[in-house]
Amino acid sequence: MKRIFWALFLLSSAVNSQPNDSMVLRNLSDNIMIHGTVYSNLRYLCKNIGPRLSGSVNAQKAVEATAKMLKDAGADTVYLQPCMVPHWVRGEKEQGIVYHGKSSQALHICALGMSVGTPDAGMKAPVIEVNNFNQLHALGEAGVKGKIVFFNYAMRPELINGGYGDAVQYRTNGPVEAAKLGAVAIMIRSVTHALDNNPHTGATYYDSAVKKIPAFACSTMDAEWLSALLKNTGTNSTPVLLYLKSNCRQLPDAPSFNVVGEIRGTEKPGEIITAGGHLDSWDLAEGAHDDGTGVMQAVEMIRAIKATGLKPKRTIRAVMFMNEENGLRGGVKYAELAVKNHEKHLFAIESDEGGFGCTAIGISGTQQQMEKMKQWLPLFKEYNILDMTDGGGGADIGPLKQTGTFMASVNPNSQRYFNHHHSPIDVFESVDKRELEIGAFALTAACWLVSEYGL
Amino acid sequence: MKRIFWALFLLSSAVNSQPNDSMVLRNLSDNIMIHGTVYSNLRYLCKNIGPRLSGSVNAQKAVEATAKMLKDAGADTVYLQPCMVPHWVRGEKEQGIVYHGKSSQALHICALGMSVGTPDAGMKAPVIEVNNFNQLHALGEAGVKGKIVFFNYAMRPELINGGYGDAVQYRTNGPVEAAKLGAVAIMIRSVTHALDNNPHTGATYYDSAVKKIPAFACSTMDAEWLSALLKNTGTNSTPVLLYLKSNCRQLPDAPSFNVVGEIRGTEKPGEIITAGGHLDSWDLAEGAHDDGTGVMQAVEMIRAIKATGLKPKRTIRAVMFMNEENGLRGGVKYAELAVKNHEKHLFAIESDEGGFGCTAIGISGTQQQMEKMKQWLPLFKEYNILDMTDGGGGADIGPLKQTGTFMASVNPNSQRYFNHHHSPIDVFESVDKRELEIGAFALTAACWLVSEYGL
Repeated sequence: MKRIFWALFLLSSAVNSQPNDSMVLRNLSDNIMIHGTVYSNLRYLCKNIGPRLSGSVNAQKAVEATAKMLKDAGADTVYLQPCMVPHWVRGEKEQGIVYHGKSSQALHICALGMSVGTPDAGMKAPVIEVNNFNQLHALGEAGVKGKIVFFNYAMRPELINGGYGDAVQYRTNGPVEAAKLGAVAIMIRSVTHALDNNPHTGATYYDSAVKKIPAFACSTMDAEWLSALLKNTGTNSTPVLLYLKSNCRQLPDAPSFNVVGEIRGTEKPGEIITAGGHLDSWDLAEGAHDDGTGVMQAVEMIRAIKATGLKPKRTIRAVMFMNEENGLRGGVKYAELAVKNHEKHLFAIESDEGGFGCTAIGISGTQQQMEKMKQWLPLFKEYNILDMTDGGGGADIGPLKQTGTFMASVNPNSQRYFNHHHSPIDVFESVDKRELEIGAFALTAACWLVSEYGL
Repeated sequence: MKRIFWALFLLSSAVNSQPNDSMVLRNLSDNIMIHGTVYSNLRYLCKNIGPRLSGSVNAQKAVEATAKMLKDAGADTVYLQPCMVPHWVRGEKEQGIVYHGKSSQALHICALGMSVGTPDAGMKAPVIEVNNFNQLHALGEAGVKGKIVFFNYAMRPELINGGYGDAVQYRTNGPVEAAKLGAVAIMIRSVTHALDNNPHTGATYYDSAVKKIPAFACSTMDAEWLSALLKNTGTNSTPVLLYLKSNCRQLPDAPSFNVVGEIRGTEKPGEIITAGGHLDSWDLAEGAHDDGTGVMQAVEMIRAIKATGLKPKRTIRAVMFMNEENGLRGGVKYAELAVKNHEKHLFAIESDEGGFGCTAIGISGTQQQMEKMKQWLPLFKEYNILDMTDGGGGADIGPLKQTGTFMASVNPNSQRYFNHHHSPIDVFESVDKRELEIGAFALTAACWLVSEYGL
């Protein structure tokens, strides 16, 4: 009889999930939905701290505040990982004014992140519109030299998921491509599907071999208006001039930190599970969806596991990565230390696609590992998490991939995301409490199952 | 050779989907995302018409406007199905004032739909709080008679999907249960997860054997405040009095219509596919999510099928049902006519859970039919429609079930839904254009596949 019992016990230990898992997940969900602090923590991060660009005073405040949150959540250990970060500052609000004959019109603009500033007096030059790089190159130096290039590339509405990746190239590569042909500055149409007055910032890049020219984004409404004005203006009529002034500059790299909170595994503490997002944000708003929600969900994971009395077999870490937006130094540092310290990283999951309702877990690993994850899907469906979708990961955890870590992501329904992303409306009020909480549950449940069963 | 060709042709006709389906769905999606009119139509319905409670002038305007939209969308035939509907009117805005000693406090309240009004002078009585029916019944007639019963039942946050069904019983059954014990009126805590100042209306019910007493809802913030006040008030201290005044009344039933737009099937026109939502709405706002989005998605289906040049084999109907909110007369009439006219209804899909991003199709039919639907899931995944979830249908199409019709629903991520539902903030601005469009695509694609392959 005893032998049968042990045989059954060993058999049940060998499978990938057990009836009890469903109850554990229900406890975690109930705890998060009833007693969760993720929403109030996000409110604190957004309202009491606010924008937290790398190198800023606010970024340091966010490091200290989230370290405290992790301690309050019950993490066994909380520590900081020092890393140097780029320190770009916007300075005073930018100005953009279109002059045409006797009329003038102010634009809703912002400098792109990492852009050089204009001269103190600003700059004024004829503005020309191109819809893509082909049109730019067709104009050649004769058409571009001395001009401000207005990249008016609209996000393609028919791309259900890939619109951002398709459109962002004008933000990232616009300054270099235009400067090669002698442009004096560039302005992009903001990368968003929304038609409104909000300019969207985001990192741009320079090439050391090409002159660095100032780079801006205008709102999509302004882009439509300016485009119509330029189309109504023949080549022989009064030119349309654009005055631009920005006050941004690059300061020396500054010291900063990743913030790590850890629950030590009871059976295999050397096997590490990482969940997180990025603590830094752009400076135009509160970085609520990008990525306050992700980091607060990781803190919530620690709190919920502790509050429900669970003891994970493997080590679970919540990591608030620093500097995703304009350098990825935190993500690189985290992977560097993992290699240096011979850590075994089993699984990493990132939440950085907005705090909207989670509908799936994105997964990337070996076929066998992915099959194992997919066997857990039935446990998630009652929470409206409906798929284990091929292709998981994120910028911050990306550098860990070299170590063979399984990459995952919290996949929300993110059609609204780019309305807010990098803009003045990425604020706490745009986050729904329950959607945020269900994302926290998704992160927690995925990490818990991996901690129980490995991969 | 010819024989082999025919064998292959017949074989391919026999399977449930073909490579071409993926292209057809892509064309439909592209057309909706690039050229769609669902968002502008919804704007018209919300802003140019607005609230459209059954029997109202606006409901009739909505009938006429959507009949025109269906014609503009290219429906082969557009017609109205007459039905009589309840005609309840709210009258002037309600008043609710709490009196305690020398202080008074106005509440954010509204009458529940179908409630009787108070006397012209209003009514003032002691208010008592109960959290559920058990507490009410425990008080008995001695505790309840002559009082206003305040049902303070909060939606349970841990119920991921079932919170509304659990909490709404106090709205639907509160007046009868309280009146049986001699209460003079009831006020419920609004049925929403949100903690804010918006009262939420919705239908309540009476029993002909029990006195009809006026019924109200207060905002969740007011419910919290009043509950705290009542808890701080011992039985011996000054009683808390509530003054309530409503001006609603029930007029005689009024004539109204379902609006139907149809594309006639080329091969099996007698097999009917129905897609729709309800055209009526509550009167506190614009009925954007409830259910302007559903009816506008059904119109969009007709437009997209016509615009992409598709010719469905079976008949596809967009139906704007009248009177879902307080009678379901339109839904009942539609099924009645289906039986009377010996129509063969194959499939019906309803969109009435808010115009949020569609994540699944809900399905209810025979096991074999459901398996067939599930085989189509891979076609939907690239649009983030990730599941064919057991359990589909909706109130309006519900009466069709008796005829053996397969029942389906557009399942959005609806955690935000009850923040808006039946309240003053169910307005056009709360709908995201892309989420709305993807819901329209889901409806269209499901109906198209059924029209091609049957069930």
